[in-house]
Amino acid sequence: MRLAELSKRSGVATATIKYYLREGLLPPGRQVNMTTAEYDEEHLRRLRLVRAMIQVGRIPVATVREVLGHVDDDSLGRTVRLGAALWALPQVPEPDAEDEHMGAAQTEADELLHTLGWANARMLTTISPAYRSLVVAVAALRRVGYDWDAELLVSYARLMHRAAVLDLDFVETRESEAERVETAVLGAVLVEPILRALHRLAQEEESARRYGFE
Amino acid sequence: MRLAELSKRSGVATATIKYYLREGLLPPGRQVNMTTAEYDEEHLRRLRLVRAMIQVGRIPVATVREVLGHVDDDSLGRTVRLGAALWALPQVPEPDAEDEHMGAAQTEADELLHTLGWANARMLTTISPAYRSLVVAVAALRRVGYDWDAELLVSYARLMHRAAVLDLDFVETRESEAERVETAVLGAVLVEPILRALHRLAQEEESARRYGFE
Repeated sequence: MRLAELSKRSGVATATIKYYLREGLLPPGRQVNMTTAEYDEEHLRRLRLVRAMIQVGRIPVATVREVLGHVDDDSLGRTVRLGAALWALPQVPEPDAEDEHMGAAQTEADELLHTLGWANARMLTTISPAYRSLVVAVAALRRVGYDWDAELLVSYARLMHRAAVLDLDFVETRESEAERVETAVLGAVLVEPILRALHRLAQEEESARRYGFE
Repeated sequence: MRLAELSKRSGVATATIKYYLREGLLPPGRQVNMTTAEYDEEHLRRLRLVRAMIQVGRIPVATVREVLGHVDDDSLGRTVRLGAALWALPQVPEPDAEDEHMGAAQTEADELLHTLGWANARMLTTISPAYRSLVVAVAALRRVGYDWDAELLVSYARLMHRAAVLDLDFVETRESEAERVETAVLGAVLVEPILRALHRLAQEEESARRYGFE
């Protein structure tokens, strides 16, 4: 298809597509003559991914380029390739201070992974940004004196593991390996806001069930 | 307790506490004499809540003041009081455009609530920011052509409802009504990053279980 059709099918303005091409976020089309290039379904898919990251995820262009570099690196195995792409996405902010709560939170996170039997996650603790985010978030709870019991964390983790199983089951319905990796990245950007909204809606529903609207 | 002890027990600098007092985020202490005020456990609790919202949630001071106004409004029933406090928290960004995807997403969200039997949430759709966030997030999926089936959304919603039951069960372990409302707000600010980190960790664990580290 020509640029105009790519624009129409993707809903992305031609000027924006040209910008993505210049920035290397979209591979060049097949040059038909001096002024015309031809694009295919892969360009369309890639364009949607780039658009989701930039317009929905508000991810900086340089980060998008880095994520795509991992998505396209088929020298890597699937877990590593996925991990590299997802780890390149923006993470939660780092803590203001390294204090005693960070150490306690790390112990708590390690005990959690042990209790859950997440042997693979335990092997990744030194390099995984998700593990780091968990420690930072638990330390924040502790720092403000929010004293829940460790059982609650285990229950939340089991629920999120079931969500992850749903995620990966869906990713596996995609036909090609390239599509699977792209879907996993899209999911990380687009599904997180949905889970967050569903969580808040569920709190409203459950609260009204228990206490009514009085 | 005096200001110095309040600072020590909360880990918040006295200058910061004085700032919160000036901004009306913390009620004044009981004046003992011209230069000394006495603070109690309620001040300590409130200080932790304010700190969590500002330092962890990065919520602007004016928004914190609004949330606290609802937390303290004991003329409201529990659901409405909680709802008002949580709804005053920052929500997901609004969409760039009102397009045909927003209408389709609203239909999808309405069908979801119907399928789930969330009768209370259905009554709140015109005013709930969580419902609005869901519609915006689903429209974003549709806009980039991410074609999952509606079943997946139902499954995610059921998981998040179980998380909400855990949240409210924990809130109910708090003794006073004031503590319960404060805990619900703290939970919204502090637990969301934990769920997000657990979700990503679970994806890593599940991915490695399925595909190994090759």
